[in-house]
Amino acid sequence: MFKKILIANRGEIAVRIIRAARELGIKSVAVYSEADKSSLHVRLADESVCIGSAMSTESYLKVPNIIAAAEITNADAIHPGYGFLAENAEFAKICASHNIVFIGPSPEIIISMGDKATAKETAVKNNVPVVPGTKGVVKGVEAAKKIVKEEIGYPVMIKATAGGGGKGMRIARDEKELEKNMVAAENEAKAAFGNPDVYIERYVEQPKHIEVQIIGDKHGNVVHLGERDCSIQRRHQKLIEESPSIAISEDVRQKMGEAAVRLAKAIGYDSAGTIEFLLDKDKNFYFMEMNTRAQVEHTVTEMVTGVDIIKEQILAAAGENLTVKQEDIQIRGHVIECRINAEDPDMNFMPSAGTITNYIPSGGIGVRVDSHIYSGYDIPPYYDSMIGKLIVWGENREEAIRRMDRALREHIVEGIKTTIPFHLRVLDNEYYQRGEIYTDFIEKRMSEEKK
Amino acid sequence: MFKKILIANRGEIAVRIIRAARELGIKSVAVYSEADKSSLHVRLADESVCIGSAMSTESYLKVPNIIAAAEITNADAIHPGYGFLAENAEFAKICASHNIVFIGPSPEIIISMGDKATAKETAVKNNVPVVPGTKGVVKGVEAAKKIVKEEIGYPVMIKATAGGGGKGMRIARDEKELEKNMVAAENEAKAAFGNPDVYIERYVEQPKHIEVQIIGDKHGNVVHLGERDCSIQRRHQKLIEESPSIAISEDVRQKMGEAAVRLAKAIGYDSAGTIEFLLDKDKNFYFMEMNTRAQVEHTVTEMVTGVDIIKEQILAAAGENLTVKQEDIQIRGHVIECRINAEDPDMNFMPSAGTITNYIPSGGIGVRVDSHIYSGYDIPPYYDSMIGKLIVWGENREEAIRRMDRALREHIVEGIKTTIPFHLRVLDNEYYQRGEIYTDFIEKRMSEEKK
Repeated sequence: MFKKILIANRGEIAVRIIRAARELGIKSVAVYSEADKSSLHVRLADESVCIGSAMSTESYLKVPNIIAAAEITNADAIHPGYGFLAENAEFAKICASHNIVFIGPSPEIIISMGDKATAKETAVKNNVPVVPGTKGVVKGVEAAKKIVKEEIGYPVMIKATAGGGGKGMRIARDEKELEKNMVAAENEAKAAFGNPDVYIERYVEQPKHIEVQIIGDKHGNVVHLGERDCSIQRRHQKLIEESPSIAISEDVRQKMGEAAVRLAKAIGYDSAGTIEFLLDKDKNFYFMEMNTRAQVEHTVTEMVTGVDIIKEQILAAAGENLTVKQEDIQIRGHVIECRINAEDPDMNFMPSAGTITNYIPSGGIGVRVDSHIYSGYDIPPYYDSMIGKLIVWGENREEAIRRMDRALREHIVEGIKTTIPFHLRVLDNEYYQRGEIYTDFIEKRMSEEKK
Repeated sequence: MFKKILIANRGEIAVRIIRAARELGIKSVAVYSEADKSSLHVRLADESVCIGSAMSTESYLKVPNIIAAAEITNADAIHPGYGFLAENAEFAKICASHNIVFIGPSPEIIISMGDKATAKETAVKNNVPVVPGTKGVVKGVEAAKKIVKEEIGYPVMIKATAGGGGKGMRIARDEKELEKNMVAAENEAKAAFGNPDVYIERYVEQPKHIEVQIIGDKHGNVVHLGERDCSIQRRHQKLIEESPSIAISEDVRQKMGEAAVRLAKAIGYDSAGTIEFLLDKDKNFYFMEMNTRAQVEHTVTEMVTGVDIIKEQILAAAGENLTVKQEDIQIRGHVIECRINAEDPDMNFMPSAGTITNYIPSGGIGVRVDSHIYSGYDIPPYYDSMIGKLIVWGENREEAIRRMDRALREHIVEGIKTTIPFHLRVLDNEYYQRGEIYTDFIEKRMSEEKK
């Protein structure tokens, strides 16, 4: 087993990894920028090393400094967390060349899954569904009708290959609409981009973002830990996640899980990772991409299954077997996570750095807090605005919603603006409460309500 | 359902009850003494009323002031928490006479279970084992031999009726020892107290304190939520509790649970309560007493079963059915609780009141914090020294111990002394780690180790 892990990250995820290391009896080394001197991860780690100035490029992204910190502290492994160097294959290679274990998958897997086209091809090869579409440009209405009828199925979205900003995009729900809208799309594309070429994809109606957590080890074992519904996003940033998704049946859950495990096994995946799917209103799921790291929202799955994903990830990197088998994994109750960001939801989510004058975190039954802040903490303006995650467990979704409402109301963060009031409005939204949450939820449902 | 609950308590249990009320959509009223003006329960409640000066007898025990506070705030129920008025039958009666629901059992049950002799008689009547013994004084060795042989069984403890301080007490493991030690005990008792009378009880070897949590409603439903092992005590004050107890088999667990439910049903128990047992080394259990309130350590059971005991207690008081059935209740993983007291373990646990200059509570996976303190909080010297409970969940006992160790180490409480260093020493003790914990653990195992 590792003797010492260096954590090439900051904030709540650095704290998270220190906790896992400590519970495994492994020493931890924090690295920090000059702006993070008084950060909690520095205080909680066994050792700490300053690796540069405030700008990430001069510290958390500065590979030579991180490698040097690992070497002077005799760390035998590096955990990259998420963001920063977590999906940087070059960094993973450099770690290996210095005889330091990178806690994550191999550089080859990071590269192949990091390329969207290769990832999709791999999915198709392994019988994992992707959004069906033409292989490239389709010319003429008759050819289009034939390929939609035989391969794609209605409804479809016609998209300009040179497109952007919604121009040259048309939905067609049947042959008649295809005839009419293909011509319209081509004309619009020609007018807008000087190029009439279009391609066609299945139109995913009421899409939900559902992702499956997997963990694998170096002995060929891969298990999935159920799904997370991450449909509540603002500009592709997740804000609230939950598990299980009430949109899918046990049957769909099992199929998604099996697809995720199949893909992961096919590529020899041996760490924690996530397979992201789009789910349409008929409960068809389509592979979007794979994240080859521990994600922010791994905590949701930990709370609903009881499995410590970061521990498993560390153990797997050290060559140990997974401690859990697929048949042992049990989804129990319902979990919701709200990301608490230092942002002003009434000012278009503008970042709100500054000093936290008073912090009294929520607690009590069913509440997990993952955070790096404390009373008196100065939020530096250089990094991500997330200052913590509030995760609650309930016997069912209704109890989880009520508990989250309670937990948010008693989570005292003074001195800065946070997304807490926004989360409270989401919880109070009737579409949210009914579980009618799709990726357009914030745009469509939260703009309707008055502030 | 109740519209508003007044909480006749302070500290972490007041915060706990506010949380349950809020999750049920019920408003809460905090009461506070002049010394508790800046307490967290006052801040978190929907309303608050000052009920008197610092001394408990002038505030938290002052029934007219509490009733007046309930009347002026229109509270329709009072939750007494634990301690203070929680097992005061007179207070329960006064609540009823003011048309305020007392959240707890009836005054009759409080009285009958509060009297140890009546409680034991009730247990015996309902086939719940108690420590076997003579009904009173036993005269002469021959009579003693007969009664031990026929009714009690060896080993036994011979005790002086006028006894105290260990004088006139002798263990006898067989007839020979009984012959010898009975005479010795009688002589010693006569010399010490001028009265040679002795009685005899089964001697419980290596006793463990195991208690069963039950909840009942007004419709005759009673379920048990498994047991807690509370053997780690200092002067009869529990310090660390856990569930499940690794000392008992599924068979014994079921028998204890059934005995607890049988007793509760027999007396028509309709609230949250605890049946305390002594467990001997042969896994025989004996009824000790019943606590007719929610206990400090109810949180352990909540975390291991997922059942919200305080919610169930409130719902039951309002006439609702329990939300859980016996067959739904599942013990999952292992839970340990450490009581964090403002005491100096190196100075014989002397209370350590004062200002908390810095408080950064533990968090992350598997950690629950129930507390009323915050950075800058002044601990008043008038009340119980408990400033919070740290409760952790693990897949098994070993993980729970490691997690508790991690959680205690990162639980930052500065400005006062706490029992955290003591808890860390217990976790590190090999007897503790092996689960060899009996009620003499602290006396016997913690005095051996050097500080």
